[in-house]
Amino acid sequence: MLTLDFHPTGRHFLQIPGPSPVPDRILRAMSYPTIDHRGPEFAVLGKRVLRGMQQVFQTKQPVVIYPASGTGAWEAALSNTLSPGDHVLMYETGQFAASWVKVATRLGLKAEVLALPGLEGWRRGVQPHLIEERLKSDAQHSIKAVCVVHNETSTGATSNIAAVRKAIDAAKHPALLLVDTISGLGSAEYDHDGCGADVSIAGSQKGLMLPPGISFNALTPRALEASRTAKLPKSFWAWDEMLEFNKTGYFPYTPNTNLLYGLAEACDMLLEPAHGGLQGAFARHVRWGEGVRAAVAAWGLETQCLEAASHSPVLTGVVMPEGVDADAVRKLIYERFDLSLGMGLGKVKGRMFRIGHLGDCNDLTLMAALSGCEMGLKLSGVKLAGSGVQAAMDYFAAHPAPVALLKAA
Amino acid sequence: MLTLDFHPTGRHFLQIPGPSPVPDRILRAMSYPTIDHRGPEFAVLGKRVLRGMQQVFQTKQPVVIYPASGTGAWEAALSNTLSPGDHVLMYETGQFAASWVKVATRLGLKAEVLALPGLEGWRRGVQPHLIEERLKSDAQHSIKAVCVVHNETSTGATSNIAAVRKAIDAAKHPALLLVDTISGLGSAEYDHDGCGADVSIAGSQKGLMLPPGISFNALTPRALEASRTAKLPKSFWAWDEMLEFNKTGYFPYTPNTNLLYGLAEACDMLLEPAHGGLQGAFARHVRWGEGVRAAVAAWGLETQCLEAASHSPVLTGVVMPEGVDADAVRKLIYERFDLSLGMGLGKVKGRMFRIGHLGDCNDLTLMAALSGCEMGLKLSGVKLAGSGVQAAMDYFAAHPAPVALLKAA
Amino acid sequence: MLTLDFHPTGRHFLQIPGPSPVPDRILRAMSYPTIDHRGPEFAVLGKRVLRGMQQVFQTKQPVVIYPASGTGAWEAALSNTLSPGDHVLMYETGQFAASWVKVATRLGLKAEVLALPGLEGWRRGVQPHLIEERLKSDAQHSIKAVCVVHNETSTGATSNIAAVRKAIDAAKHPALLLVDTISGLGSAEYDHDGCGADVSIAGSQKGLMLPPGISFNALTPRALEASRTAKLPKSFWAWDEMLEFNKTGYFPYTPNTNLLYGLAEACDMLLEPAHGGLQGAFARHVRWGEGVRAAVAAWGLETQCLEAASHSPVLTGVVMPEGVDADAVRKLIYERFDLSLGMGLGKVKGRMFRIGHLGDCNDLTLMAALSGCEMGLKLSGVKLAGSGVQAAMDYFAAHPAPVALLKAA
Amino acid sequence: MLTLDFHPTGRHFLQIPGPSPVPDRILRAMSYPTIDHRGPEFAVLGKRVLRGMQQVFQTKQPVVIYPASGTGAWEAALSNTLSPGDHVLMYETGQFAASWVKVATRLGLKAEVLALPGLEGWRRGVQPHLIEERLKSDAQHSIKAVCVVHNETSTGATSNIAAVRKAIDAAKHPALLLVDTISGLGSAEYDHDGCGADVSIAGSQKGLMLPPGISFNALTPRALEASRTAKLPKSFWAWDEMLEFNKTGYFPYTPNTNLLYGLAEACDMLLEPAHGGLQGAFARHVRWGEGVRAAVAAWGLETQCLEAASHSPVLTGVVMPEGVDADAVRKLIYERFDLSLGMGLGKVKGRMFRIGHLGDCNDLTLMAALSGCEMGLKLSGVKLAGSGVQAAMDYFAAHPAPVALLKAA
Repeated sequence: MLTLDFHPTGRHFLQIPGPSPVPDRILRAMSYPTIDHRGPEFAVLGKRVLRGMQQVFQTKQPVVIYPASGTGAWEAALSNTLSPGDHVLMYETGQFAASWVKVATRLGLKAEVLALPGLEGWRRGVQPHLIEERLKSDAQHSIKAVCVVHNETSTGATSNIAAVRKAIDAAKHPALLLVDTISGLGSAEYDHDGCGADVSIAGSQKGLMLPPGISFNALTPRALEASRTAKLPKSFWAWDEMLEFNKTGYFPYTPNTNLLYGLAEACDMLLEPAHGGLQGAFARHVRWGEGVRAAVAAWGLETQCLEAASHSPVLTGVVMPEGVDADAVRKLIYERFDLSLGMGLGKVKGRMFRIGHLGDCNDLTLMAALSGCEMGLKLSGVKLAGSGVQAAMDYFAAHPAPVALLKAA
Repeated sequence: MLTLDFHPTGRHFLQIPGPSPVPDRILRAMSYPTIDHRGPEFAVLGKRVLRGMQQVFQTKQPVVIYPASGTGAWEAALSNTLSPGDHVLMYETGQFAASWVKVATRLGLKAEVLALPGLEGWRRGVQPHLIEERLKSDAQHSIKAVCVVHNETSTGATSNIAAVRKAIDAAKHPALLLVDTISGLGSAEYDHDGCGADVSIAGSQKGLMLPPGISFNALTPRALEASRTAKLPKSFWAWDEMLEFNKTGYFPYTPNTNLLYGLAEACDMLLEPAHGGLQGAFARHVRWGEGVRAAVAAWGLETQCLEAASHSPVLTGVVMPEGVDADAVRKLIYERFDLSLGMGLGKVKGRMFRIGHLGDCNDLTLMAALSGCEMGLKLSGVKLAGSGVQAAMDYFAAHPAPVALLKAA
Repeated sequence: MLTLDFHPTGRHFLQIPGPSPVPDRILRAMSYPTIDHRGPEFAVLGKRVLRGMQQVFQTKQPVVIYPASGTGAWEAALSNTLSPGDHVLMYETGQFAASWVKVATRLGLKAEVLALPGLEGWRRGVQPHLIEERLKSDAQHSIKAVCVVHNETSTGATSNIAAVRKAIDAAKHPALLLVDTISGLGSAEYDHDGCGADVSIAGSQKGLMLPPGISFNALTPRALEASRTAKLPKSFWAWDEMLEFNKTGYFPYTPNTNLLYGLAEACDMLLEPAHGGLQGAFARHVRWGEGVRAAVAAWGLETQCLEAASHSPVLTGVVMPEGVDADAVRKLIYERFDLSLGMGLGKVKGRMFRIGHLGDCNDLTLMAALSGCEMGLKLSGVKLAGSGVQAAMDYFAAHPAPVALLKAA
Repeated sequence: MLTLDFHPTGRHFLQIPGPSPVPDRILRAMSYPTIDHRGPEFAVLGKRVLRGMQQVFQTKQPVVIYPASGTGAWEAALSNTLSPGDHVLMYETGQFAASWVKVATRLGLKAEVLALPGLEGWRRGVQPHLIEERLKSDAQHSIKAVCVVHNETSTGATSNIAAVRKAIDAAKHPALLLVDTISGLGSAEYDHDGCGADVSIAGSQKGLMLPPGISFNALTPRALEASRTAKLPKSFWAWDEMLEFNKTGYFPYTPNTNLLYGLAEACDMLLEPAHGGLQGAFARHVRWGEGVRAAVAAWGLETQCLEAASHSPVLTGVVMPEGVDADAVRKLIYERFDLSLGMGLGKVKGRMFRIGHLGDCNDLTLMAALSGCEMGLKLSGVKLAGSGVQAAMDYFAAHPAPVALLKAA
């Protein structure tokens, strides 16, 4: 076996915004022997995870499960609904939105980027009025789709998808709304049927608390209709065969069986009524985000997201003072305290780091992470206004978790 | 947890030709906590599996690892080397070759199928002279690639890839040779550098003894050169970014971390010198195939593959006598004896079943499987000429395994 | 990690009569993080396994669970009910009965061995009339306890405990009846409340399908009464504190937490109504025993047990012809076929080997084991009258398993 | 499966002084299939753990491994060296020392308790001069053994065993020195050969980082000599047969195989040269203890141990102010923050709680635990002098861990 932690002892704290820490229940479930993906037991598994993912997406529409990591689900949403050269309007909230633009461009789409100037857009959620204005100016309806990221993993800003839908409708524009909720699903409130998305995209390694390796498209009748005429070449990502096979709980080609075991367990955990179900999960993440931001404020540091209404319940971006290399801070923290933090990506590389507060997480996991950050910042010479750890303790002590303990069986 | 076996007790015998039975060492390795795919431990893991896969492919060229199941690697090989409308010559040895044609067609390639008439082609390996003849007739060199399946999982016929390369060369044709060794790699002798393939395609859930979910392209300088001008749209499957990131042991987008843990363990097992390394693994599978075919012959049944030189060391297709529904036999065997066999696919559905002899396998696993088959065939009313179980015992007893036991540490 | 199998590939066949093969569900359950043995979750676990073990023993009386392997439970039964120098009558059915005598002697008891002459007693179950005669002759009631082994693991003979109780009663003797059902419980019909035992002793690594490490005493009011005056020194094995703590689901000293996780799972599996519950488990083992004995008969070999009514459903002892060293046969079978068989113990060392048909077992597991035996016997030069493998297939095919498949959830 | 954590999400923090948190490497190792305890692979395992435990005890003498939890090893040390009615001098440092007295008494020994008056003895290590005085007064040498606890788990005081030996020698008394280092071994410096113990007793669930279920006696020639005449009845605990079988790597009765897999892994981890080996482990625990005591001091609370030289590196007892119920504080902390702390035992029940800093532990695990304590104390209305969390961060930041990171393989 590989030695997967260079530290001598103790559990690694994986507080990056995905892959998130995977609960032991899920890791054990994944280690059961692989079964025949054409046998009778598999159909039970298949139906269970397909139904479970509908509940997690809050949808009655079909959800497609890919045996591929999340980046593939971006490609799937585009290639099933669009044709070569199609014009898509992609709102840039950060690095992941920018990466999706690259995918669209590689696939031969004409990707138009909409963004606030400079770094402004990377510190806020989507500005729906900009989309509305742009669509209104597209009288010929040449724009075929609007692409937005629900929870921007690179900055910690969450966007209001219903408001984007309202903007599209206000512009009376027929463009499809494709939403990346890869790092949002299961953590940040998301209602596929209610928010007006045409395709919602997700991955396993964030709020679903699984290792990376499977990803999702939640569909709508409108998206399916578009798929019937979309001409981008596709085979692995094609929805049609998937939906056909899924009716009986099977898949057209070999699924990622062992990750599906984990997915069944993840759905059970997320939907557990005694823990408040999905709403309980959303509330837990909101509270964690507030506790972490209390810490950042007490340190006298800025969060990357500047918009109060857009703070992500999933992660917090922490901006370094001028002259401090965020990656050097992260390295020191990793080496000294066995804690992984997310790096600044793209435009903000070296300027910030990211604290994930998702997956298999609780108050003390976050207190550990914040302690590691506070010690590491000080050791790196960053002047702090006060103790973020103290502020987070004050917050968590004053605000009990939203749902009580499970009763003994 | 799901109950993953409907039977009351005992281990399920998964003798389908993939997903193959996964060794306990690999299942446990996969259940370790997910780590940061941008952290220092990951680079060690990444380099190790990239190097390990070169050894398994017997190549000094780069191997690309996709966080996606095997079907995706077919698409990857095509989309990285070809352009829309390109003419490809695809030899049909069975259902998997036929499915690859469907993928090519969906991607917008002009797929020409080469095959022996009727069912003939499904009972033999590739006939290289047919390829040579066809290429000679293509004076304009409109054919851009020849696609063949090394080990046809639907029939149990293995093809001579070096002979295919010789045929292409004999025709003095520049077409690329793309080889699917999804169910061959790690089980049936395969030498990427020596056999003349330009791209070799593999998956995790066969000879590598892993669950499904990762897949591979082994490259060559010629394939890389083709990729620089190939115009099929691609993003997830694109080689260029992969190769760039792989230099340092990392991946451009989130890899399937936990399956990579398993892959590291699988490489250790396959390459273990005390067990004869890769050549030992090949020899074990050859011997298992001979034992199983001895059983089929003793039953007085036909194997699907009729060509002595092409019998697969990985699986054996067993043809039912006229009037016997192979799927009814398989169902009875599954229900009574907790044994999964592969079904007949496509043209041979209901006419045959398949016994896998790959993955985490040994003589007694096969004796169990053959006993289940023999009891099930009799209970289904199939007249047998004699005892296949007896014949297999005679074979295995007379032919010791090629490599001695591991010495105690 | 240690390499725990010296063979290159495939699953080891552990067909010894214990430790028996452990189901994957149990191995995974055991690998969950250890919890606080004084915390609220533990009480739920403790109550569940204490209640589960009452169901498995078929008793309404208390069951004591020791964090120690089975040999300790022998000592516990003696030291809680007896005083130094007490006279105990111990019936020798084989090596395990003989080992129990050694334990009693070491503890300072006066152990009187009752047995048929020579090897006779090792080929039969307990002869109750011998016990009755001996007790009748003990007019002073100096004998304080009768000790018998329910399922003699060294020979494969199961004794009728109710008949032993009847013999004691017929002698109007007040001796306690202590019964070792270490290798019987969960496999061979055993009814603590119905059979008249005063203490029943069991271990985890047989019919309960767990690794070794925990063991049991099932009590009765009579045994508890005896314990109040018994003077053998005891602390770890003392019942009194155990029973006091068990009332609330806890233990007086640190329990074997992770094996208790496995025990909870084992109880679920054994008691599963859809698989026939405990009676289903008993019926499965009876059938396996019949299949295996059909094989031994076809080989023309003798079973160690000669008494039709006493054949064990748990294991079968196979006697070698004169001049054949059973241990050499076992070694060859282990090395060539990755199959572990039980050795002959004590008086029958080298004269026989034992095939376990218990634990995580099914028809094909046994066919694998019998194939390994048949090949190994032939390679060792043993002349066989016919094919035992054939006979077992005939038996299993003709006799369907007693309970249908689990219905899909 | 049982739901083993009533909290909705996140990893439970098990900061009791044993069972300690078990590393994932060990939990996975324990989940491998059980092997034949009489087969060739087992001998390799057996020799490895027997040798490994000699290294952990720092001894060249034999170490006995019992398939039973730690309480049994107390009984083993007494019953192998003493005879009924023997007089033993047992020093009471806390509840575990007191419990050992109960064991001795139950076994029929005449246990004389030596202790400082009132609660004094529970706040200090062993006072060797008291032992010296008492032994000097025993001119007839009626005292056969002196029993001391190396690391008193109920209070957090560690005793100087070499000083105890010196005291016995100064009294020129032949009594054996029996040392319980159940919660010390592997965490608090302990040198069996160097410290003068005659028998050292340990368990798996503390510094060895395993679940409970196995325990140890480290022997000496003097102890072995005593065992030849000791008359306490014993069978399961008897050293003689153990030592005989251990010579070849086997055990006289069924060992706890799967915990031995874990033990092999634990030895690898504890002895890893790149992490400083055993001395590295000791140094890590010393540092953790200092950090935790810095927190307690900052809170303005007392530690249970008052003697500077005796503070345990393994756990810290925290005394509550008058009028505060420590168990109510613990309950609140468990429910609100998913953190288990050790309760006050015996004389100090409700007066203190215990923080474990052993097993799979690191700086941030402790920061999490201290944060949980600080929040819980405040929510319970305990007036704190200052922030213990802040003090611990200051300590850990100022004192780097003693050994660098493992170099990448």
